[in-house]
Formats: sequence, C-alpha cells, structure tokens
Amino acid sequence: MSHTGALGVFDSGLGGLTVVRALRALLPSERIVYLGDTARVPYGTKGAATVVKYALGCTRHLVRRGVKTVVVACNTVSAVAPDRLRVEFDLPILGVIEPGARAAVRASRTGRIGVLATAATIASGAYPRAIAQESTRAEVTAMAAPLLVPLAEEGWIDGDVPRLAVRRYLGPLTRAAVDVVVLGCTHYPLFRPILESEVARDVVLVDSAEATAHEVREFLIERGLEHPGTALGGLELLVTDVPRTFEEMARRFLGGELPDVEQVDL
Amino acid sequence: MSHTGALGVFDSGLGGLTVVRALRALLPSERIVYLGDTARVPYGTKGAATVVKYALGCTRHLVRRGVKTVVVACNTVSAVAPDRLRVEFDLPILGVIEPGARAAVRASRTGRIGVLATAATIASGAYPRAIAQESTRAEVTAMAAPLLVPLAEEGWIDGDVPRLAVRRYLGPLTRAAVDVVVLGCTHYPLFRPILESEVARDVVLVDSAEATAHEVREFLIERGLEHPGTALGGLELLVTDVPRTFEEMARRFLGGELPDVEQVDL
Repeated sequence: MSHTGALGVFDSGLGGLTVVRALRALLPSERIVYLGDTARVPYGTKGAATVVKYALGCTRHLVRRGVKTVVVACNTVSAVAPDRLRVEFDLPILGVIEPGARAAVRASRTGRIGVLATAATIASGAYPRAIAQESTRAEVTAMAAPLLVPLAEEGWIDGDVPRLAVRRYLGPLTRAAVDVVVLGCTHYPLFRPILESEVARDVVLVDSAEATAHEVREFLIERGLEHPGTALGGLELLVTDVPRTFEEMARRFLGGELPDVEQVDL
Repeated sequence: MSHTGALGVFDSGLGGLTVVRALRALLPSERIVYLGDTARVPYGTKGAATVVKYALGCTRHLVRRGVKTVVVACNTVSAVAPDRLRVEFDLPILGVIEPGARAAVRASRTGRIGVLATAATIASGAYPRAIAQESTRAEVTAMAAPLLVPLAEEGWIDGDVPRLAVRRYLGPLTRAAVDVVVLGCTHYPLFRPILESEVARDVVLVDSAEATAHEVREFLIERGLEHPGTALGGLELLVTDVPRTFEEMARRFLGGELPDVEQVDL
C-alpha cells in the first residue's frame, strides 16, 4: 500500500489524536497516517536533546511512508525541534505553536495571555516567542502543568483531583488577569469543562489542536496540496507500544470508532 | 576505570534510588553503578514486550560495565521481565517483588494483604503469585496507583492532590480490611506520611526497597560476593536523559549529596 499523498501526523503518544480529530472535521477527504510514540511517552518531562532525537525518528518513519506533509501534533516537539526537523527533511513540517499563538493574539482584548503547557515546552520559551512575533504588546504568563498529561491518560478528567490540579496551575494566570488561556498540550482539551468552570466567564480558552487544523487546511489549499475528490480519506494508526488502555485512550482523544492499529519499531 | 565487583542497579527512572539508599545503609562498602532509563521513563504504563526490551538494554549496559550482580530496582521490570533477563545473562539478577512479598507475609497477622503498584505490575499478577508462594492463606487486594509516579516526580508529595489520589487508591484495600500495604513501586515511599495518615493505625506499610536491600545483603554474604574491607564504596549515576528536575528528584529519592552523573545511550 502506498501512502503517497497522505498527511503524516505524529505525537509522543495519543494526545495528538485531538489534532487528527480536528483535521478530519475540516479536511475529511485527506488520508492521515498518525504515529504515536507510545513506547517513549511522555516527551514533555524530558530534555530537549532527547526530544529532538525522538522527533527525528518519528519524522523519518513518516517520510519513509511517503507522506506529503508532516504535522507535528505535539507541543513539546513543536517547541524544541522544528528547526532541526526542517533542516533534516525536505517536505513541509507544520507545528502547533504558531497557530496557537496566532489564535491567542486574535482572541485577546487586553493582550494578557496565559499559556499552560508541559515543562519542556515552557522551558523552551516557544510560546512567548511566537506570541511576540504576532503582537508587541502581549504579556505572556506561562505555567507548566505537567500532571495534566498523566491525569488525562488515566482518565481522571473530572472530580476533585484534576480540579485541584487545574486550580493550582491556573493560579498565576488568574493573578495576572489573563483573558486568554492557550491549551498548549494536546492532552489539555480533555479538561475543558473543568478549565471553563475555573476561569472567569470572559476568559477564552484557545485549543491549539483546532487552530493548527485550520492552518493546515489553509496551507494545503495555498500550495495546491489538498486531496482531490470528496471520498472520505482513511486513517491509519501507528504506535510504538500498545498500552493496556490503548483503545479507551484513543477513543477519548479521537472520538468515535477506532481504525486498525499497527505497532512499529523506530 | 573498571567496575568489576560493583553492584549494578537499574530502574526506569530515578525512583530506584530509594533502593540504592537502602543498599548503602546496609552495605556501605559496596560500589554501586546505578542506571536510570530517564529517556524512556515511565515503564509502568507500557506493554510487557516494550518493558522487556528496555530491561534487556539496561541489563546489557550494566553487564558491559562488569558488575557482579544486577539488582532490578523497578517493580515493573521485576514483575514482567526477570525470567527473560535470567535466560539472557549469566550473572545473578535480583528483583524487588519476592522480597516485598516475603516481608508482607511476615508482617501480616490476618493474611489480608494490599498491594499498590503500577498498572503493568498489577496486570502481571506478580505480587499475588509471589505472595501465594510464601503463604497459602493470604488474600491479596491489588490496586494500580499509576498517578503516584508523576506526582512524586513533580514533587507533589504533600497537600490535597496527592492525599485525594492516595485515598482513592487505598479505597479497595481499606474495604478489604488489609493489615499490610505493600508499596510496590519505588516511588511510593515518598508518600509514606500521607499513606500512614490514610490507613488505620495497625496497618503496616511494607517498603519493597528496604526488603530488597536486606535480601541483597544476605545473598552477597551467602555467595561470598560481598565487598571486602570497610572503606566506603563509590556510587556512579548513569542516566539516559538529564531531565530538568534531575538534581531535585535525585536528591529526593537518594537523600544527601549527589555524585557526578553521566549520560549514556542504550
């Protein structure tokens, strides 16, 4: 089977399926090959050099499968590895940081923007940098919220424990009176109900998965790379490990029916 | 530098330093080479085949450094990989499950034993099996407590969030009226103060790190493998990734001063 013309999407694990879900809603006829590096998840707690090494391996695998464009559906990789990936590979590589930053600047009335992301993403300074590219008056308050990843993967997305964790992470953002909170990790949209109830009513939550899907669509159309026709595109799921709760997790992030899954070695 | 005669100890991350700490208290003159696979941590949420592959890599690295014995300071690896490691390598390989199981059976008056461990350890059934080897009348209630690992790594070891998580995990054990709780993951001893306040006063907490250190000492003496002399043995720390919070985490698990650390590629 040839994958020429498919969109390649990868993430450290299954969280990036929130990006796939948004892509399929906007670009239903695109074929998508998704690679989740579940054997080495999470990336967000690890050092930049390790994340770059893993990202090179994931991209190489997708390129070998003949994808036309790679969407890095992982904030941590998008924060620390995009330049290196663009040097190594000769195809378009789109990340999630810039779309999220642009959407945040558009949504903010006061210019006070909050960012929740993994420790590695926050340490990289990628969001404040990308936001500064879009607006010179924005003030960014960034907070690492690392526990939201394992909480999401365990399915603890409502109840006291995630609520208290979310409240603690939002503290500095609330004190800075932000009017936008960027969900700077593909896992965080699962906490949207809690997040919405813990911020003031006029605070806008920006989901970088949705913002990215919109920009991918624009990019494909501009370049004439979009898939022709109206037939539904297929979805292929590749993972490096099949975790115990794979199906439950994949369904949580992707919604609806699951395609077949193939285990690959990078 | 030769490492012949050192004890090799490995874990998925830094949690196994709780075993090193216990070993150094009992066997101060042993040299110890510790390998933490921090680039691929955690193991406890991953599939058995992936954990076995990683465990083979860690053991191979320690064997190449000439260690005399390997202590698997990781409950997940001890649960799913020991037979495979013993087939592949021609040196003694000691795990943490059997020592913890024996200590639990000794400590229990009622035979009702609770186990908290990672999802992979619980799924393996290793603790109930090991406990059944020691006592035919024991009744085991085992509960996966996966969030305690990231909570420990983030340093959230006191306060509301870990207390509520611990309470939720202890629920089935309390309802089963266990009189012993095995801390079946090297991270869990960090929650001892919370655990003690959340169980009835007569419930004994069994730390598999301490139980393992005692059995390693007996094993070395029986085999005449213990290090001669009374000079303090050195400690070498090897990691596959240097995480952002490495020093803080290592100090939390090991206590006291940190030795130099070397990053290795497996």
